[in-house]
Amino acid sequence: MLKREDNELVTRVGPDTPMGNALRRYWMPALLSEQLPHADSDPLRVPLLGEDLIAFRDSDGQIGLLQNNCPHRGASLFFGRNEEAGLRCVYHGWKFDVAGRCIDMPNEPAESDFKHKVSAVAYPCQELAGVVWTYMGPPETMGPIPDQEWMRLPLGSVWISKTLQECNYLQAIEGGVDTSHSSFLHRDFSPSGGPLGTSGYRTRSTAPRLEVLVTDYGYRYASVRHIKDEDKDYVRVYQFVMPFHQMRSFEGYEPGRATVQGHMWVPIDDENCWVFNWMYARDGQPIAADIFLHEEAMFGRGPADLLPGYKTKANRDNDYLIDRNLQRTRNYTGIQGVNTQDMAVQESMGAIYDRTKEHLGSADTAVIATRRLLMQAAKDVQEGKLPPGSRPGTVSQVRPAEMVLPHGTAWAEAMQPELVARW
Amino acid sequence: MLKREDNELVTRVGPDTPMGNALRRYWMPALLSEQLPHADSDPLRVPLLGEDLIAFRDSDGQIGLLQNNCPHRGASLFFGRNEEAGLRCVYHGWKFDVAGRCIDMPNEPAESDFKHKVSAVAYPCQELAGVVWTYMGPPETMGPIPDQEWMRLPLGSVWISKTLQECNYLQAIEGGVDTSHSSFLHRDFSPSGGPLGTSGYRTRSTAPRLEVLVTDYGYRYASVRHIKDEDKDYVRVYQFVMPFHQMRSFEGYEPGRATVQGHMWVPIDDENCWVFNWMYARDGQPIAADIFLHEEAMFGRGPADLLPGYKTKANRDNDYLIDRNLQRTRNYTGIQGVNTQDMAVQESMGAIYDRTKEHLGSADTAVIATRRLLMQAAKDVQEGKLPPGSRPGTVSQVRPAEMVLPHGTAWAEAMQPELVARW
Amino acid sequence: MLKREDNELVTRVGPDTPMGNALRRYWMPALLSEQLPHADSDPLRVPLLGEDLIAFRDSDGQIGLLQNNCPHRGASLFFGRNEEAGLRCVYHGWKFDVAGRCIDMPNEPAESDFKHKVSAVAYPCQELAGVVWTYMGPPETMGPIPDQEWMRLPLGSVWISKTLQECNYLQAIEGGVDTSHSSFLHRDFSPSGGPLGTSGYRTRSTAPRLEVLVTDYGYRYASVRHIKDEDKDYVRVYQFVMPFHQMRSFEGYEPGRATVQGHMWVPIDDENCWVFNWMYARDGQPIAADIFLHEEAMFGRGPADLLPGYKTKANRDNDYLIDRNLQRTRNYTGIQGVNTQDMAVQESMGAIYDRTKEHLGSADTAVIATRRLLMQAAKDVQEGKLPPGSRPGTVSQVRPAEMVLPHGTAWAEAMQPELVARW
Repeated sequence: MLKREDNELVTRVGPDTPMGNALRRYWMPALLSEQLPHADSDPLRVPLLGEDLIAFRDSDGQIGLLQNNCPHRGASLFFGRNEEAGLRCVYHGWKFDVAGRCIDMPNEPAESDFKHKVSAVAYPCQELAGVVWTYMGPPETMGPIPDQEWMRLPLGSVWISKTLQECNYLQAIEGGVDTSHSSFLHRDFSPSGGPLGTSGYRTRSTAPRLEVLVTDYGYRYASVRHIKDEDKDYVRVYQFVMPFHQMRSFEGYEPGRATVQGHMWVPIDDENCWVFNWMYARDGQPIAADIFLHEEAMFGRGPADLLPGYKTKANRDNDYLIDRNLQRTRNYTGIQGVNTQDMAVQESMGAIYDRTKEHLGSADTAVIATRRLLMQAAKDVQEGKLPPGSRPGTVSQVRPAEMVLPHGTAWAEAMQPELVARW
Repeated sequence: MLKREDNELVTRVGPDTPMGNALRRYWMPALLSEQLPHADSDPLRVPLLGEDLIAFRDSDGQIGLLQNNCPHRGASLFFGRNEEAGLRCVYHGWKFDVAGRCIDMPNEPAESDFKHKVSAVAYPCQELAGVVWTYMGPPETMGPIPDQEWMRLPLGSVWISKTLQECNYLQAIEGGVDTSHSSFLHRDFSPSGGPLGTSGYRTRSTAPRLEVLVTDYGYRYASVRHIKDEDKDYVRVYQFVMPFHQMRSFEGYEPGRATVQGHMWVPIDDENCWVFNWMYARDGQPIAADIFLHEEAMFGRGPADLLPGYKTKANRDNDYLIDRNLQRTRNYTGIQGVNTQDMAVQESMGAIYDRTKEHLGSADTAVIATRRLLMQAAKDVQEGKLPPGSRPGTVSQVRPAEMVLPHGTAWAEAMQPELVARW
Repeated sequence: MLKREDNELVTRVGPDTPMGNALRRYWMPALLSEQLPHADSDPLRVPLLGEDLIAFRDSDGQIGLLQNNCPHRGASLFFGRNEEAGLRCVYHGWKFDVAGRCIDMPNEPAESDFKHKVSAVAYPCQELAGVVWTYMGPPETMGPIPDQEWMRLPLGSVWISKTLQECNYLQAIEGGVDTSHSSFLHRDFSPSGGPLGTSGYRTRSTAPRLEVLVTDYGYRYASVRHIKDEDKDYVRVYQFVMPFHQMRSFEGYEPGRATVQGHMWVPIDDENCWVFNWMYARDGQPIAADIFLHEEAMFGRGPADLLPGYKTKANRDNDYLIDRNLQRTRNYTGIQGVNTQDMAVQESMGAIYDRTKEHLGSADTAVIATRRLLMQAAKDVQEGKLPPGSRPGTVSQVRPAEMVLPHGTAWAEAMQPELVARW
């Protein structure tokens, strides 16, 4: 349970909010590289942290991320002409480069030209691992771009996608770091015992014991499920990386090739977020496109599952296409797609969930740890400090893992080799 | 005319509002029994008095009406699994019975299980006359379920339906207790002189004299129309039962079998209400389904007139399918369906009508009486008293009536036998 | 740049706002005459200055403009019966004439009839030049209806149309008095060098020098473009007439017959406005319907371009049907229709643009002049004075013009004969 003021603190992300200021100390995914496919491709609207922004790729291939409203008289740069190394407002032809500098003011006579006095808000961008990253905070606190194992792999070895989620980012994070729900929300009654082997363990042992270890990047946590009839422990270790990254191990569809998968939940505004999804094989080798697409479909976020704008066809307006007969006979929710199931419950909490009304238990230990870190980040920035995980650290050397161990094994030692990044 | 503060008082129905508190002292219709057709049927969203609620019928056939958000982490119980005498949240499997008790908490290890400390808001429900009734107030002031003549008849003798209305409940009540509008809004120019015999009297005498008699349940009122050319009085007696019931006599389609009909206007929130409609023959005997459906269609609320969710196809978004040519030639409004005509004018007043701007006359006597009773109820509850009509009384013994009498007859005496319930 | 309080002042137009009060001192277009095509035609909703109004043409052909809500109990007069020289509310039959007088109250007995005490808000209307004009201010400050050259021409010599624009009226005015944007927003790359001859000059000389002359009706302003290779000045003189009229000269499609065209931007509420468009030939003679329709289509507002209710099919919900390939190859915006281009940039500034963020230059001189006049009008009315241009004056004698002159010519003298109304 949070006090009302803490719930406000941790969920509000706009300019000049404490949490918004904290998030602006981290590099964050703004869009997929493929959304700006080539030099001078079409400008895009990219709302982030409550700000309306326009992304474009200039003639040299560089990414710009500018304020939506032209500094002159406010026309949207979305309609702009992207040409000759800059984005031109169509209203009066003012032109801006990726750094936001006004580099042409053609409707003013030479004697009154004041372009050197004008600039648009522009956030620095970098491309890495198929993602356009941006930094929206003060220049003096900007650090290097994040370095996680998946980001070091070539495209094709790592795959990435995104979907829109219509609720506050924190509900999405909380669902993502909450392992116990996978025993229920994602349960499958089909004869195969679910789509993936380890999901059987999650179904058979529904009340995991959680252990959280806070780190310099966020925390690592293990959920330990005692499988009584086999006298084993099924242990799943997640990594949570500030401010909104999650990494988990996942068997995947390809025989013998377990994967690492992750999400990044990026606030669009207080009531919406982008969900970025990535995956790679633990062996670091390429994954065929059809394997990737097969997994995406299972998660309910494949190309056939999406409307333009990355909204899923199954969404809150149609109750996620719930099929009550399916719910009675084949799966726990009657909703198809693992991430669609996540979205259904997370969005159903309301646009911004009122955490004064919740009742947390021991299964919510990671949820509590997440909030503490985020609120600490807000407090740190208010006090002029760098927030946790905003600078390079051990995150570059970790990966998540899952293992089945003899019951009572000291998992941290037994699993240690599996928790070290290899690429 | 109401003062602004009185208009606010009498129209706001949410938790912790004076009028909301008063309404919570009465049993009220929550939904139709047929909406939960069998044990373990699909859960439903039932918003009432500004609260989001989920209704379900458990394995034993009992009705539950629970808070929408699971007490654990707030996922909507709408998506819940209705099974084995309880509703299970699909997020983490927590299960609640119809009394709101948490009876299973399967994601917590035995040692940290705290289900006995958790309960969901649950309102007691009873089924009567095809309606699921609920009581949303404090347990200590709960009285017995209402007892009106129609509720004592078996289904088939009494018929019931409902529609959605997109305005504050009070506008709907005021239209329902306002007899003079029937001379205009529902006027029919077709050669038959209107669908029903007595409607001719209402058309020929448009300015009734109103007499209101306040009772222990609300009030009884008569509208007396002098039919000059016949030297008769056409007298119609309505019953208004607190807080939102209306009963009126109606000739109906079946020759020789006059009916009693009524509405209940139940606030969904400040800007929407459910209209429940019921009817039975004065002789108390069964009414054939096709007679009932014929009447429903005349009122514009038959099965063919409704969208899913009980919204009429003719609604404010399409100006109630008004046909201006029809308006010039066949009926007063150009809108089909008696209740659709009511809905059109009542919704057109705005979501919550500003009663500081109205100009009431003697024809609005019943409207004024209604507001006084409702405001009295709010005041009574604020003072710790039971509001009028919230306990059994003479309402069980009354019915409405209409008669044509020699002009000047003392109607109250002449009609008395017709105003006594027979079933 | 405006201070926040000035931006609020000049953009808010509802009842009892300073700018709303000022605008209510002028006659303004409420709708097109053709929208009420004959006596007793269908009533229409006409929202103006934040007020909900209903327009009707009575049996005698007179126009009424009444408050939406019936003074009795608030039903919308939109559903009213328009018959026998008045509009009758369908709820209880109360009837109002074009002056707002209640002339029938048929649901009240004779002894309690109080119709002489009831009236609806009714604004006086006059028809002129295909437009229904209304005056929404205090009776004691009402002046004569405006007199501009186009209003004196017969229909067929003058043509008029209207469209809906979904932003504050001031953004629309500012776009309309801003000549420099025509060099960019409306630029056409097609081989013909654009649809009209003088547009070539606007494309070749993009940084006009502006001269504003404040008058009794508003201001006259010239944009002077030096066409260097021809050693000429292309001079365009606009007239701005308080509070929202613009007049400009335009070559037009008909060989040898230059036109005068104008707009009136009438606030519907703070976030929407009507754009009225008119045109006539400088020679004052009739323009054939197909010529008019050809021009309307070029502007993107012909009959085929509109949805019911005067909203354009290309609108903000579909990004004005922008075609990025067209933008790269044929015109500056990728949007079809000159006025659709205007609408795109003006609406893209937001519903009410935040002028604290703008950066104005010398090309925005007319924009600045407009705001000053409007704010002066608000101040004048606050001080009990008549605002500028609210009484007859020299406006009846002016017209706009454009000319190509030898470079350095004193344009005011050279163009004077062209700036005098002839009809």
